[in-house]
Amino acid sequence: MQATERAQPLRVGVAGLGRLGRRHALNLAYRVPGATLAAACSPLDDDLAWAREALPEARLFADYAAHTGYAEMLADATLDAVWIVTPSALHAQQIVDALRAGKHVFCEKPLSLDVAECERVVEEARRHDSRQVTIGFMRRFDPSYRDAFDKVRSGAIGRPFLVRSQTCDLNDPGGFFVRFAPQSGGIFLDCSVHDIDVARWLLGKPRATRVYASGTIALHEGLRAAGDVDNGVAICEFEGGALAMFYASRTMAHGNDTSSEVIGTAGALAIGHIPRASRVEIYDALGVRSECTPTFFDRFEEAFLIEAQAFVAAVRAREGVGVGVGVGVGVGGQNDAQPAGQGATLEDALEATRIGLALRESLHAGRAVLL
Amino acid sequence: MQATERAQPLRVGVAGLGRLGRRHALNLAYRVPGATLAAACSPLDDDLAWAREALPEARLFADYAAHTGYAEMLADATLDAVWIVTPSALHAQQIVDALRAGKHVFCEKPLSLDVAECERVVEEARRHDSRQVTIGFMRRFDPSYRDAFDKVRSGAIGRPFLVRSQTCDLNDPGGFFVRFAPQSGGIFLDCSVHDIDVARWLLGKPRATRVYASGTIALHEGLRAAGDVDNGVAICEFEGGALAMFYASRTMAHGNDTSSEVIGTAGALAIGHIPRASRVEIYDALGVRSECTPTFFDRFEEAFLIEAQAFVAAVRAREGVGVGVGVGVGVGGQNDAQPAGQGATLEDALEATRIGLALRESLHAGRAVLL
Amino acid sequence: MQATERAQPLRVGVAGLGRLGRRHALNLAYRVPGATLAAACSPLDDDLAWAREALPEARLFADYAAHTGYAEMLADATLDAVWIVTPSALHAQQIVDALRAGKHVFCEKPLSLDVAECERVVEEARRHDSRQVTIGFMRRFDPSYRDAFDKVRSGAIGRPFLVRSQTCDLNDPGGFFVRFAPQSGGIFLDCSVHDIDVARWLLGKPRATRVYASGTIALHEGLRAAGDVDNGVAICEFEGGALAMFYASRTMAHGNDTSSEVIGTAGALAIGHIPRASRVEIYDALGVRSECTPTFFDRFEEAFLIEAQAFVAAVRAREGVGVGVGVGVGVGGQNDAQPAGQGATLEDALEATRIGLALRESLHAGRAVLL
Amino acid sequence: MQATERAQPLRVGVAGLGRLGRRHALNLAYRVPGATLAAACSPLDDDLAWAREALPEARLFADYAAHTGYAEMLADATLDAVWIVTPSALHAQQIVDALRAGKHVFCEKPLSLDVAECERVVEEARRHDSRQVTIGFMRRFDPSYRDAFDKVRSGAIGRPFLVRSQTCDLNDPGGFFVRFAPQSGGIFLDCSVHDIDVARWLLGKPRATRVYASGTIALHEGLRAAGDVDNGVAICEFEGGALAMFYASRTMAHGNDTSSEVIGTAGALAIGHIPRASRVEIYDALGVRSECTPTFFDRFEEAFLIEAQAFVAAVRAREGVGVGVGVGVGVGGQNDAQPAGQGATLEDALEATRIGLALRESLHAGRAVLL
Repeated sequence: MQATERAQPLRVGVAGLGRLGRRHALNLAYRVPGATLAAACSPLDDDLAWAREALPEARLFADYAAHTGYAEMLADATLDAVWIVTPSALHAQQIVDALRAGKHVFCEKPLSLDVAECERVVEEARRHDSRQVTIGFMRRFDPSYRDAFDKVRSGAIGRPFLVRSQTCDLNDPGGFFVRFAPQSGGIFLDCSVHDIDVARWLLGKPRATRVYASGTIALHEGLRAAGDVDNGVAICEFEGGALAMFYASRTMAHGNDTSSEVIGTAGALAIGHIPRASRVEIYDALGVRSECTPTFFDRFEEAFLIEAQAFVAAVRAREGVGVGVGVGVGVGGQNDAQPAGQGATLEDALEATRIGLALRESLHAGRAVLL
Repeated sequence: MQATERAQPLRVGVAGLGRLGRRHALNLAYRVPGATLAAACSPLDDDLAWAREALPEARLFADYAAHTGYAEMLADATLDAVWIVTPSALHAQQIVDALRAGKHVFCEKPLSLDVAECERVVEEARRHDSRQVTIGFMRRFDPSYRDAFDKVRSGAIGRPFLVRSQTCDLNDPGGFFVRFAPQSGGIFLDCSVHDIDVARWLLGKPRATRVYASGTIALHEGLRAAGDVDNGVAICEFEGGALAMFYASRTMAHGNDTSSEVIGTAGALAIGHIPRASRVEIYDALGVRSECTPTFFDRFEEAFLIEAQAFVAAVRAREGVGVGVGVGVGVGGQNDAQPAGQGATLEDALEATRIGLALRESLHAGRAVLL
Repeated sequence: MQATERAQPLRVGVAGLGRLGRRHALNLAYRVPGATLAAACSPLDDDLAWAREALPEARLFADYAAHTGYAEMLADATLDAVWIVTPSALHAQQIVDALRAGKHVFCEKPLSLDVAECERVVEEARRHDSRQVTIGFMRRFDPSYRDAFDKVRSGAIGRPFLVRSQTCDLNDPGGFFVRFAPQSGGIFLDCSVHDIDVARWLLGKPRATRVYASGTIALHEGLRAAGDVDNGVAICEFEGGALAMFYASRTMAHGNDTSSEVIGTAGALAIGHIPRASRVEIYDALGVRSECTPTFFDRFEEAFLIEAQAFVAAVRAREGVGVGVGVGVGVGGQNDAQPAGQGATLEDALEATRIGLALRESLHAGRAVLL
Repeated sequence: MQATERAQPLRVGVAGLGRLGRRHALNLAYRVPGATLAAACSPLDDDLAWAREALPEARLFADYAAHTGYAEMLADATLDAVWIVTPSALHAQQIVDALRAGKHVFCEKPLSLDVAECERVVEEARRHDSRQVTIGFMRRFDPSYRDAFDKVRSGAIGRPFLVRSQTCDLNDPGGFFVRFAPQSGGIFLDCSVHDIDVARWLLGKPRATRVYASGTIALHEGLRAAGDVDNGVAICEFEGGALAMFYASRTMAHGNDTSSEVIGTAGALAIGHIPRASRVEIYDALGVRSECTPTFFDRFEEAFLIEAQAFVAAVRAREGVGVGVGVGVGVGGQNDAQPAGQGATLEDALEATRIGLALRESLHAGRAVLL
């Protein structure tokens, strides 16, 4: 490929400028070769003030009054793609609108908390099959998860048949997630949905057949009103006999502890066993210790970046255009070999929601739920 | 205490000289101060031939023709205690017989695979309450498990509310356990029963209220006929809201991997995360690695020894006699402080069987089982 | 700061497009906000061909015939800075030339293998004190080394008095470094120079007073002719009583194993104890293992990038211009707080060369060398 | 072998009942099959009072007035062996006396702080070559060190050429070792002597040719008067090109940290990298941590026991008598295969003293010392 033939940068508009939205926006603006952050919208003045400083090249849309800002942003014909980091309840309709406006779409998880709505998006996407739609299960782009996935696929552990995976957050004494509980869908849909996707991804995308879930409130009694728990455990059975065990917690003392294991007939892989914040070990009167990643963003900062780079590459691949020598060779180390199509599809997201809802039903009913 | 007042050695007779029985017998003969291996019985000529060599001071009983050997051993009035390492189906009656003969009893787990039989033994033991009866849940005597237990009790992790525990064996291509499956009670009664006991011990002995179990056959199709699996997973709910997750496997590639975690409101403890065989790390073309303990005996060799020492101490404590300065001070390091009464009681063993049977029922029925 | 006031990108020209030079060039071209790779020069046609593809926006200079290319590049008044990744023997003069041309300078280590030449550069730089000159001791920018440095400075380990540090490369059976030995200055100047800088940085930049070094040839007999070894060990004493121990090897079986420890009166820190390539652990018949980083670039990829970002920030800080919101806030996680001035100065590089030369002298003479 | 042919227990007398002496005495009394603690002597009333309680079967000798107690103990013809745990200055003469009395001898390290005296003992021992004489370098009996030794010998790491080894003690604010400094011989003879022996053992017992040592006082200024340091580092060169690096410290914050590495042409082994006290990991607000072994006895408790068992086996092997099936088979796990002759010989101890003295000389002289 001639470097001079390289495509114009992908022009992206971000919807939602909360904590995670800002991270995505900055990545797109400054760290993703081949992409330009061309627009952003938010209903909050604070967000827009921040954006004027931090994203000087982005066209800003105020998203008040029935979200007209998002609609206006979609109407900007110079935008190639939208990046949805809005509240979950808006995801499905915003994806549909974006597709109808001819945009490629990246949307944070979850696709939706409602299966029917998920299915509606899947159908709409089928009508726009030239558009890239990726749901943000970022663990697939974490170099360690990716390494494990590649090893499994290469046969390193024989046939994988069991995944154990957890999403455990540092306890927030302020209890933000307690207030958020009514909209979050509960711990399984908010947290375990990542583990569900990891399990299916590592096990070859089997369909779930039966789940059982349980949980307890260790610290945050305020969750009881919403029917939620701060620690949940679950078993998920898949067709063909594969299994998964999930653990989600809001009450860890040591940090964000996201880890997974995949066990096969000839070996096993553990990913992230100890959530080390760095390569430093401290020797003192308490023993020998590693400090831990405090939040999921500290743990997955690199994954979020690679995810964005892969999205650009996936769009380019659809267009039959490479991302350019500069990006493909050596700009990143580990991410060079990231195939464009590894992101979670709408179908993956639908299945994750389906299983997450069944887990919540099992938790409430106290019995196994068939899918 | 005057050293000259020390009690005579506890005279122990071992029933069963299989692989594990021999280990117990050698410990009692040569490594447990305050005990003498005074007798042994087995129905197998090979075992007896081995014993004549290895246990020259033991009186040997051939245990053929309706186990008259065991009865004869019980009739030996010079014996203070019996150590039962026979097939599980014999445990309950042998304990009852030993109690009626006035002996203290150590019996390998499980107490029985039948709840009613367990209850019968419990009742019988109540009638002989001057006798010590301990069931061999040896993890309670492993220094690392003991350290975790002490830390939990001291409040180091706040209120413990979740235990995750696993018993995973190195794969045996020969499949001994496949042939053994009809008598083993299945993977949950044979393996997870240890994890059940650990969970209850670390959580303060709550009663189980509901369980769910699932499993799969990864390698050993021969188990299907016995209704068993080679990998099993389970959730156990306890009164008061505590939870446990269990994993049992017969198919590990790397060794015997027995580990547990206890999670509390202010921290967590992991026991045996990586089943290191030693303190050696190997650096070579494959990376940096630790070799693993191949069998449960390699992992728990020290626990088996401390368990025997603690049994002797428990008997002595009942008799109001110390074990002697020589034993109590410094003979062992970590085990010096082992309280005499930490072994699993018959009630603990009954509860472990009750939960194990419920797990098996859940596996077969595909639904949660209430206890 | 108003975003619109942001400075124009720093225009950088890279000299040298070997393996490491290409990495630097790609970082500057695509991953360092606030910088533009505006030029590159190399005497090799292959390098220039690569650059035409990979660096389409860079003006290229052929560096043949007495390095006129480099001189021409310096003559390009639009360039703000040069990035020297040429053979070590050229470094000193190229820095001087760049300073005289009014450029900021980044130069890969070592500054020079000759103390007098180092001193000449130091003097020249003093005459151009508005120019930023940084020598590429990239470990200072590695997040784990940086974390350790910050902890030491905060008093976490009391007074640091001993550093142990090693630079150990995966064995190269082809023996590139054997052919390179005559120019490398030997193992201490080529490898340990990093450890020397780390030791001084962590210990508060003390002056060395005496060194002793030894070494052996484990595999590469070809080094003998050059008076070099493939494994070297050394002790370095500093004024005030602090100490350092160094180990350098060319013959590791497991990967690039760069690690350091700093020991203080109240604790110690280890950096990179096990050179894990990722967060994946493999469980198989060999035990439990972590794969290792094969090369220093795999280990320090992030450090090279942060180093370049910090150089840009340092230049901006001299100019009284911030790097801009987009860079300063959140683009990177750990690197956000990198102070601009943490890079190794020419004085640091001079001291590292001085110590490295003394180590080589000690190795050859078999006696301690006073500095 | 017929069990009935087994030899009578080896009758051992212990000289010295300080902290370490008591540990040895209790091991011999209660934990070493085939041995009987038949006698003990000490000049201190406290020790003898302790012994009357703890060692009721031992004949006690008061060791006052020119150590007549030791002489009387040697005169006891029923004793087969003596176990010397007295102050270092007494070792040499006590070994000579014991040999002349026809006893087998175990003596704690160091043999002597004087080379001529060491040589005198070696000569005397040659005149009594039917007697077993072992010096207490207990690391050789630690299962992890033993595992490393076996791996090295089996060729697992190719040709070993470098050992790094350290003996680092938990800081004792009371500074016992400061008061002990005048007799200890200094940090290299007191601590590094273990590392010297480990290095020679793992490298195939090469002779040292040159050493260099340095040190610093980090905390204990009181050592200055004795010419000692609380942190010492050293390089030792061996004939044939092998190398060793040593580190000894009295000031660790985290525990007794004894570790070693052996590096070969095809790999490396690390022994005891993190001085874990157990298999427990603690997850709390500080991160994930392992508590550490506080003292060398906690770390090497098992080694001291195996060492004693091996001594008995070595004596038995000289006598052409096995130790008996009960001991040889299965009583211990890892120690079953311990060859009788692996203990350090007088020649090993002589060489360790020779090197240790050279290190001390180098520390004082500030120059390399040839051997």
